[in-house]
Amino acid sequence: MTDIQTQLAELDRGTEESLPDGGLKAKLEKDRPLIVKAGFDPTAPDLHIGHTVLINKMRQFQVLGHEVVFLIGDFTGMIGDPSGKNATRPPLSPEDIAENAKTYEAQIFKILDPERTRVEFNSRWMGDMDAAGLIRLASHHTVARMLERDDFNKRYSAGQPISIHEFLYPIVQGYDSVALKADVELGGTDQKFNLLVGRQLQQDYGQEPQVVMTTPLLEGLDGIQKMSKSLGNYVGITDPPGEMFGKLMSISDELMWRYFEVLSFRTLDDIAGLKRRVDEGMNPRDVKFELGLEIVARFHDQASAEAARQEFIDRFRGGAMPADIPEVSLSANGSAMGIAHLLKAAGLVSSTSEAFRMIKQGAVRIDGERIEDRSLEFGAGWSGIVQVGKRKFARVEMA
Amino acid sequence: MTDIQTQLAELDRGTEESLPDGGLKAKLEKDRPLIVKAGFDPTAPDLHIGHTVLINKMRQFQVLGHEVVFLIGDFTGMIGDPSGKNATRPPLSPEDIAENAKTYEAQIFKILDPERTRVEFNSRWMGDMDAAGLIRLASHHTVARMLERDDFNKRYSAGQPISIHEFLYPIVQGYDSVALKADVELGGTDQKFNLLVGRQLQQDYGQEPQVVMTTPLLEGLDGIQKMSKSLGNYVGITDPPGEMFGKLMSISDELMWRYFEVLSFRTLDDIAGLKRRVDEGMNPRDVKFELGLEIVARFHDQASAEAARQEFIDRFRGGAMPADIPEVSLSANGSAMGIAHLLKAAGLVSSTSEAFRMIKQGAVRIDGERIEDRSLEFGAGWSGIVQVGKRKFARVEMA
Repeated sequence: MTDIQTQLAELDRGTEESLPDGGLKAKLEKDRPLIVKAGFDPTAPDLHIGHTVLINKMRQFQVLGHEVVFLIGDFTGMIGDPSGKNATRPPLSPEDIAENAKTYEAQIFKILDPERTRVEFNSRWMGDMDAAGLIRLASHHTVARMLERDDFNKRYSAGQPISIHEFLYPIVQGYDSVALKADVELGGTDQKFNLLVGRQLQQDYGQEPQVVMTTPLLEGLDGIQKMSKSLGNYVGITDPPGEMFGKLMSISDELMWRYFEVLSFRTLDDIAGLKRRVDEGMNPRDVKFELGLEIVARFHDQASAEAARQEFIDRFRGGAMPADIPEVSLSANGSAMGIAHLLKAAGLVSSTSEAFRMIKQGAVRIDGERIEDRSLEFGAGWSGIVQVGKRKFARVEMA
Repeated sequence: MTDIQTQLAELDRGTEESLPDGGLKAKLEKDRPLIVKAGFDPTAPDLHIGHTVLINKMRQFQVLGHEVVFLIGDFTGMIGDPSGKNATRPPLSPEDIAENAKTYEAQIFKILDPERTRVEFNSRWMGDMDAAGLIRLASHHTVARMLERDDFNKRYSAGQPISIHEFLYPIVQGYDSVALKADVELGGTDQKFNLLVGRQLQQDYGQEPQVVMTTPLLEGLDGIQKMSKSLGNYVGITDPPGEMFGKLMSISDELMWRYFEVLSFRTLDDIAGLKRRVDEGMNPRDVKFELGLEIVARFHDQASAEAARQEFIDRFRGGAMPADIPEVSLSANGSAMGIAHLLKAAGLVSSTSEAFRMIKQGAVRIDGERIEDRSLEFGAGWSGIVQVGKRKFARVEMA
């Protein structure tokens, strides 16, 4: 296995928190493949690259020779929110679960090695548990500690109802770590509380508690807000190659390095090398091409990635896109901004009537695509490369 | 069936609360036998007559033709307190449960008609429930409402831990009402919250919610504190006839009427008749004899009761006990009082040395029994008839 210092450096990359201090090192010193658990809701998965930060962390463990468990929480998924208050948690049928699991696998195996990934369903152990067993399990946690969880605390203080079964779900999730004898559990920062429940339960069950590692929420294409579908600042992992490549080309240079850190499979040394070359004069756009190529190839294939790059270059008329595009940040004060106003505010036209004229002439492009719709609007979180005629460019972000 | 007004008057007798207002009347108007549930912990039963107030209420329903369910909570009993923090709730084995159930039956069938009492164990439905079913059940109640329960509220506010499984027990108890389709649930006043959970769950499960009736905690022999073993102011239902009779003779006249209300099977009319006779000059001691006879006969038999009365009379030398014994209330300020100090404080001797002399001469009796032990002590809650020589009597209560 890779030496521990190298493993630690790689695993620490882009990690938000690793608890307890020194815990991961102690686990790695066991010098055996660690059991690394990450749990996923079995709701219909439609991942964007922000979600893959966690899966990339799983991959790092996998590449380093550890045993990665992709755990699908089908037991709780089949129950959903029986109080019916949470519309986003409908109960799923076994058929739904199987379907969603297949979709998950199709997506995650673009990152993980299917041969070396253990896919588990927590119904395997929870399905056999009876009510008495769950009562015994629930005795391992207190009401006060559960109410310390941030969202419970806020809801309780605000007088919003919390159904008692909601207290049982973190305990079930924690018990999954007992059942799997997990050495490490990975999750988003919002999962930290639940991951710590797992540590406590393992201790109560006489196991060495797992190390808890959280990965950050990824910044969206605007570099400001967290990546999210509703904000529109995302790259979906099923986006077509051209769209995916174009979106990645629209990010700022600063955000590009962040994406390299948490999205690229290049080693840290490799990335440091790229940075040096940019410092020595290399066009950052060409490094961004490398990032775009890697990501598109991951979710499609190498040929599609190359084609997407070529298409992108062609769209910008054989490299007419300047190396340094001015960055413009606009605000529509919470509402959306029309295309004509956007062009004017970005300094690409002198008036909205000129804007409409340029659109009519077919001289306006966004991310290389000709715009024909005069009524287009752009909300907070949107960003893209806007072009008027052959020479005027701006990288626009809506705040 | 008995007419509704008569039923209501009898059922209201000694009842602390009946919820909702008018609920019992509406249930009785259904003109069919109601299902009347009362739940009992399957811990080793060692009942005193205070506990029988509830069982007497069950008997009233039974006599009026309703179906009484004596529910033993063996499901939760077999789990106990898995957090191990509550030493009074050890998990019970099926053998323990069966043993305790037999002991219960031996005790309650001195009050209830075995032929017409349905004995149930909640493991019948809870034993088949799986963890998913319990999660669904738990979704019917909120954390905030559970924390309104008095003892939970106090513990939470005081920072004392509440294990999450403790929130599940009231829900299981409530579900028992659903499983039994209970029309009425009886319980002590301390059970009110749990009984109301049953109402809510029945509603959620599409049933008409049960009427909730609570019975009071009975005053002990001192007439002040609640009856309890640890205070020593109790009559155990397995006490021997003589002891039981003597203890009942030691109560005040006022407490006697209270005991008639909640412990006697005499009708309200009958009791009103006894009161009239005392007002007209009948010696209250003779009415107390009636109470003593009834209670002793219930837990033993008529012959033993008669014998106990005769023995009591003989001990007091053929009726030497005066009709009006002065009542003396003493306080040992939280600790216990020695026999000599008690005799002096009660005004029966002029000094503690006289007290010891009288004990030595065999002239001191308590509840008719000669006292020989100079080191006897009496704590708060104790009461008894103390006699020095042939003529000096006092009914002493330790506050």
